[in-house]
Amino acid sequence: MTLPLREELRGIEPYGAPQLDVPVALNVNENPYGPSEAVVADVAAAVASVTGTLNRYPDREFTALRVALADYLGHGVAPEHVWAANGSNEVMLQILQAFGGPGRVAVSFAPTYSMYPEYARDASTGWVVGHREDDFSLDVEHALAVIAEHRPTVVLLPSPNNPTGTALPLDTVKAVCAAAPGVVVIDEAYGEFRRTGTPSALELLASTPNLIVSRTMSKAFALAGARLGYLAASTEICDALRVVRLPYHLSAVTQAVAGVALRHADELLARVDDLRAERDATVSWLREQGLEVADSDANFCLFGRFEDRHAVWQGLLDQGVLIRETGPDGWLRVSVGTPEEMAAFKAALLEVLGR
Amino acid sequence: MTLPLREELRGIEPYGAPQLDVPVALNVNENPYGPSEAVVADVAAAVASVTGTLNRYPDREFTALRVALADYLGHGVAPEHVWAANGSNEVMLQILQAFGGPGRVAVSFAPTYSMYPEYARDASTGWVVGHREDDFSLDVEHALAVIAEHRPTVVLLPSPNNPTGTALPLDTVKAVCAAAPGVVVIDEAYGEFRRTGTPSALELLASTPNLIVSRTMSKAFALAGARLGYLAASTEICDALRVVRLPYHLSAVTQAVAGVALRHADELLARVDDLRAERDATVSWLREQGLEVADSDANFCLFGRFEDRHAVWQGLLDQGVLIRETGPDGWLRVSVGTPEEMAAFKAALLEVLGR
Repeated sequence: MTLPLREELRGIEPYGAPQLDVPVALNVNENPYGPSEAVVADVAAAVASVTGTLNRYPDREFTALRVALADYLGHGVAPEHVWAANGSNEVMLQILQAFGGPGRVAVSFAPTYSMYPEYARDASTGWVVGHREDDFSLDVEHALAVIAEHRPTVVLLPSPNNPTGTALPLDTVKAVCAAAPGVVVIDEAYGEFRRTGTPSALELLASTPNLIVSRTMSKAFALAGARLGYLAASTEICDALRVVRLPYHLSAVTQAVAGVALRHADELLARVDDLRAERDATVSWLREQGLEVADSDANFCLFGRFEDRHAVWQGLLDQGVLIRETGPDGWLRVSVGTPEEMAAFKAALLEVLGR
Repeated sequence: MTLPLREELRGIEPYGAPQLDVPVALNVNENPYGPSEAVVADVAAAVASVTGTLNRYPDREFTALRVALADYLGHGVAPEHVWAANGSNEVMLQILQAFGGPGRVAVSFAPTYSMYPEYARDASTGWVVGHREDDFSLDVEHALAVIAEHRPTVVLLPSPNNPTGTALPLDTVKAVCAAAPGVVVIDEAYGEFRRTGTPSALELLASTPNLIVSRTMSKAFALAGARLGYLAASTEICDALRVVRLPYHLSAVTQAVAGVALRHADELLARVDDLRAERDATVSWLREQGLEVADSDANFCLFGRFEDRHAVWQGLLDQGVLIRETGPDGWLRVSVGTPEEMAAFKAALLEVLGR
């Protein structure tokens, strides 16, 4: 028999960068620094202490975790302003399930995060993409025109943007929030890597009722494997997400592991400064090679342009360095790794470029 | 401003039984037996060993876990026939995202699991409910008539049924699968608690291309807090679910914890026999009190009928025994706990009934 797979899913490959076993993996913006032995020991102890009661359902409201996340975010964020789920993926899906859906439209501006249209598709939400300027900034007049035309109930704006690294000025966020008829998600997955002087949209939260600022523990907290995304927004928005969340969506183990990481925030975030310095050095080095590089407030650099970017990508992979073939045609994205990994990347790139 | 919450979510309370702190919790069909010290130690060791690389994304295909789950299920189930997610909740949502959606209908037969309409709502899928007979069995002619009328792309049939405990004969499953134009989910969340002689729909899997048999580690494996639901189905169905799954939906920690539990399956499942015996004894005792009790193949009993079931529920709670006010009017559901918990339940019930 022919199974009734939804029309828009037929022939679609599952999303995801290749998971290849390579010496230098700089393709999915992971933090290269694993947790310290102290963190590993605390995680093991915390998990052991919840394992004895794993026969019981977890705290559906993840109360302790919400308190810890609010405390970390500061900016007057209270626990009732915090929501979390299994990765930002699930947070975004929940936002679209609550505020998108059939007959509604979500908007972003390309180049933008490549998962967004998949969230929209999975929540049966229409998908409209405006554009960013040549320097990857967002033109406010264009943004407002797209919003006026399509009346999106959800606007998705990564800042710093993925895959370009571009952060949005707060005036842009304010203008978009004022014009949008629904919620505006400022996706700060890479927020902790901002350069000095780049503000966070958290500053606008208290005065902007339709603003959602999303974050993740995957990047700055080096916890991609633990799957914990979260957001700050009004109590009303958080309560709406509670209606569509699957009950007990956050396991007792996930809650415990995230709690330990937050208690070690100082140690984990110290590495962020190293990565910011390495990022700035990588941008400078790439420019010294005569390449174009987007200004980056994130833990990756978008660089180019290449007539055949796939050949460059493949040439690097042949030398054991995996980066990502993403972004506008001609550009490539490299995640910021350790100094050793970046040295390997630079050597391989020089080889590929025949220098 | 008024946020554009979806119409069908307005005024809706989040799903979930009250999470009350009571001496005897028999309300959400948890397994009362926590993991042994050996399991706790193995979980801690396994989690410690993955924590060192939590800065990396998890195995998106959860390969080792699929192998272990296939091995556990037997019946010729291969790893490519297995799918898993964060609880059966997420498994069901993914099924509806792939095979339901706008313009399509999912069908079940009441009384049935109360989360099903929420999954359908969250996946923007129409929801149609037929009925079960007075003894909670499913009349095949009625089932086929509902299917013929509504042409559901997803049929959801819990077996053993929640909240009644009723298992479906394989002939019924066969007839429904033959008539259904889409996938048929036999939800065996409580499958391991079946009475001797009650078959599993896994027996039909190889010969039935539209059959999905779902399971959970929450109940028999006593792992409700770890959130691991799974299913067995054709490779084609599993591949469809891979398209709608959020990338990296299963954390490295969840994969590790579930793996440990599967390695300890013999020990964890030994408690299932104790619970089946306690279940049978509870059914008999309730009948000796002159109450009606549905035959149960699960780890709970549906009993009644009461003119004012809420008063009975409240009377038990006042004595520290929390059961569930669910199912058809007049009935109550009690989960099977330890002998001590069931003794407390019986004493409290006699008190409430004035005996």
